Amino acid sequence: MLVNAYGAHAGDQPLEPLQITRRAPGAHDVQIDIAFCGICHSDLHQVRAEWYGTQFPCVPGHEIVGRVAAVGAHVDGFRPGDLVGIGCIVDSCKHCADCEDGLENYCDGMIGTYNFPTPDAPGWTLGGYSQQIVVHERYVLRIRHPEEQLAAVAPLLCAGITTYSPLRHWNVGPGKKVGVVGIGGLGHMGIKLAHALGAHVVAFTTSDSKREAALQLGADEVVVSRNAEEMAAHAKSFDLILNTVAAPHDLDAFLVLLKRDGNMTLVGAPATPHASPNVFNLIMKRRTLAGSMIGGIAETQEMLDFCAEHGIVSDIELVRADQINESYERMLKGDVKYRFVIDNATLAG
Amino acid sequence: MLVNAYGAHAGDQPLEPLQITRRAPGAHDVQIDIAFCGICHSDLHQVRAEWYGTQFPCVPGHEIVGRVAAVGAHVDGFRPGDLVGIGCIVDSCKHCADCEDGLENYCDGMIGTYNFPTPDAPGWTLGGYSQQIVVHERYVLRIRHPEEQLAAVAPLLCAGITTYSPLRHWNVGPGKKVGVVGIGGLGHMGIKLAHALGAHVVAFTTSDSKREAALQLGADEVVVSRNAEEMAAHAKSFDLILNTVAAPHDLDAFLVLLKRDGNMTLVGAPATPHASPNVFNLIMKRRTLAGSMIGGIAETQEMLDFCAEHGIVSDIELVRADQINESYERMLKGDVKYRFVIDNATLAG
Repeated sequence: MLVNAYGAHAGDQPLEPLQITRRAPGAHDVQIDIAFCGICHSDLHQVRAEWYGTQFPCVPGHEIVGRVAAVGAHVDGFRPGDLVGIGCIVDSCKHCADCEDGLENYCDGMIGTYNFPTPDAPGWTLGGYSQQIVVHERYVLRIRHPEEQLAAVAPLLCAGITTYSPLRHWNVGPGKKVGVVGIGGLGHMGIKLAHALGAHVVAFTTSDSKREAALQLGADEVVVSRNAEEMAAHAKSFDLILNTVAAPHDLDAFLVLLKRDGNMTLVGAPATPHASPNVFNLIMKRRTLAGSMIGGIAETQEMLDFCAEHGIVSDIELVRADQINESYERMLKGDVKYRFVIDNATLAG
Repeated sequence: MLVNAYGAHAGDQPLEPLQITRRAPGAHDVQIDIAFCGICHSDLHQVRAEWYGTQFPCVPGHEIVGRVAAVGAHVDGFRPGDLVGIGCIVDSCKHCADCEDGLENYCDGMIGTYNFPTPDAPGWTLGGYSQQIVVHERYVLRIRHPEEQLAAVAPLLCAGITTYSPLRHWNVGPGKKVGVVGIGGLGHMGIKLAHALGAHVVAFTTSDSKREAALQLGADEVVVSRNAEEMAAHAKSFDLILNTVAAPHDLDAFLVLLKRDGNMTLVGAPATPHASPNVFNLIMKRRTLAGSMIGGIAETQEMLDFCAEHGIVSDIELVRADQINESYERMLKGDVKYRFVIDNATLAG
């Protein structure tokens, strides 16, 4: 089955229209007409070969929403016409401890939505910058938002779950004080979700100009992280700091804001290392520094349902497929509030 | 009250005999005749002014055991003749959340056993390299080991609790796989305690020569950390790695050995930083890197009782007061199995 897509033939070339094949749906597969696909910073890293091992042609995209077009003979949970989503995971081993715990994101055999090995042509997975995708039912999410919100739901599949998973894992809720570092694609979701979970939310930004926007997103307070006095006022007070900044920065400035047993979770990995954190800042209050990677399928469904119930979507700017390259440039400059989403209808020939 | 002690008048001078004053016991105080005092690496750092703010004269020592000599009018829990210990803490604010949770070690007002402010002369606390000490009853530990083990109990007051606290905090027990990095004063206690708690214990050492000793201490396996093949065999398998090494080293080599949600706790702080850990190693398996500092009074008592019940003491070499300087030099070379303990009777005039 040939479908239109948008991708690149080399790391130093722009993305362009191309055609890819999708497998015919197997017994447990769901074939999806993609309506919208979010643009994640990871897409850019992968397609530009800034990350290891990019296979070309590369079709990025793992914030996928659309409607079921067809289902395999053994698929019970989905029917043609259902609103569904696909996130960062399209397969996993299905039998390891991680898969059994519903944390397929940590499975050593996890197959990402693009650039992971697959028996399908051309031998590696191709993502959501395309008209259709075919995925095993286990990795298909149900979307309960109203259809008119569908485009803005797309970024929940990566930016949403990447922030929701650590917020839940570290028991964020009423009575907890949560910091969110960075107000971008991930951070703006982190603020919305932590607020909806009932926490007292403090947004950290390097720029005073983002103060009003952060408050609008649901932050109770905004701290300019370059202002030592503002930072000191929050010393030893946070239960959790969700750090979404992938650029190298001073982790100690935030570690000292954690109370005893507080945790800072990093969801961005810098291309060059952060300065080494001061071990004393971990020892003194038994603080922890953690990482977190997207989320499992069960918790992604939980997140989508939570967002539907609370009316939460991403703040997005809808673009045509032929604006993807330009969107990448604007994303690199932080010139987006807060996520580009591709209207996949513009891939039609 | 004048007592004999051993301490230094400056960071670049050796320790020597001196006399210090101890306060008369107040209503809630316990006056202790010190029988033995362990030599901790912290003692050396502080007395040599390698750590910030050493006050001179400095009398180190926070692994103190002895007998109660006298008690204040309102002391109910101790009587003259009782075997007791004093660890790293001689006071705290007594009303903050940390103190209320029995974690006085994390109280911002914690007063360490030496070099912390006190109304007593000379204005800073003086430690256990002395004949007597007077401490508020809250910070006095009961020792239930047989008296003949008393010298070897002393290091439990710092090395013991520093390793026991994170082992308990991270729920070490049967079915858990625990690594202990470094086989020194702290590490040898970590191996003994993790083994007694029922975990599968793997000792990491840079030197194959320590293999037999680690097995004797209770390790189930020993891994030479410079052997990449041995290390790789343990990839993604540990629940907890207790890292006792204060020298800068490659944390990533151990982080990748943690399973999903595994934790590495650092109990040593290097003078110069470790290389910055790779954030991907935290993100990929939701691993955490933590610190831990000694332990609270309640858990120190719990640890002492656990050790008494399981017949656990430190492996020590008993020294005279006039061997302290020489012991420091040997400790710096790692030439001790595994802890020097001062026979405080040798302080007598």
